[in-house]
Amino acid sequence: MTDPIRSLDDLAPGQGWDIGTLSLPLEEVVAFASRYDPQFFHLDPEAARDSLFGELVVSGLHTLSAVFGHVMRSGLISGISVGGNQIDSRWPAPLRPDEEIAIRVEVDEVRPSRSGRPLGIAKLRYTARRVADGVVVLDAVGTHFLRR
Amino acid sequence: MTDPIRSLDDLAPGQGWDIGTLSLPLEEVVAFASRYDPQFFHLDPEAARDSLFGELVVSGLHTLSAVFGHVMRSGLISGISVGGNQIDSRWPAPLRPDEEIAIRVEVDEVRPSRSGRPLGIAKLRYTARRVADGVVVLDAVGTHFLRR
Repeated sequence: MTDPIRSLDDLAPGQGWDIGTLSLPLEEVVAFASRYDPQFFHLDPEAARDSLFGELVVSGLHTLSAVFGHVMRSGLISGISVGGNQIDSRWPAPLRPDEEIAIRVEVDEVRPSRSGRPLGIAKLRYTARRVADGVVVLDAVGTHFLRR
Repeated sequence: MTDPIRSLDDLAPGQGWDIGTLSLPLEEVVAFASRYDPQFFHLDPEAARDSLFGELVVSGLHTLSAVFGHVMRSGLISGISVGGNQIDSRWPAPLRPDEEIAIRVEVDEVRPSRSGRPLGIAKLRYTARRVADGVVVLDAVGTHFLRR
């Protein structure tokens, strides 16, 4: 477990946490894509050879969801998170099944509520890099409502 | 099935398609959240009463993924889609399990490739509205690479 953040007021732009690694096995990649992103280059290793990628790659929505779940399970913000309303995601390079990725969370922006409620908004940047070559496969910024 | 788009060159900003409706049953909502967004207000109807939402709500990542899968299954772009590298998502209002949402896709922007390849970029806007009251629960813009 990462040390949990106890209050929005403990956050400042530039802070960051490395939150371990994960990889997505082919079976889970195909199961996710079958339901949520049924494109042939996420589903069928043979057919995917004729895609732009030249092989089967993980759905970007799957990478995003897996990284998000990983961060939530780390406990970093689970004690103070009350919701969110925005995520802007980029996938600069493809991810293959079973490739290990390293997850990092950084604070982009912090805004205490002006309404006097014991809440505020933090923009957190989620980055996933392939461990083998350091290439970024996910760069996402989420807008979170956090307790103070 | 929606009539499939045959080429990026058939797209123009302002075009739009209504692609039917869907709803997410509680069992699927909890299964998705357990793996990809394990926050108590997506997992436990009792505990969720004490959340800001006052009840269990669907993970925004689940809404996004389900809408995206629904559009892919419609066949609208599956014949010409070769990948994508960006989705910017907003969740202006919460979605509850079993609430029916209506899905719409609109063309925000079209850019043929300058490299001479038979491809181009289209920005497609995905909107999901609760059928009961018309409230938008998802507003997402995806950047797609499409064949010409």
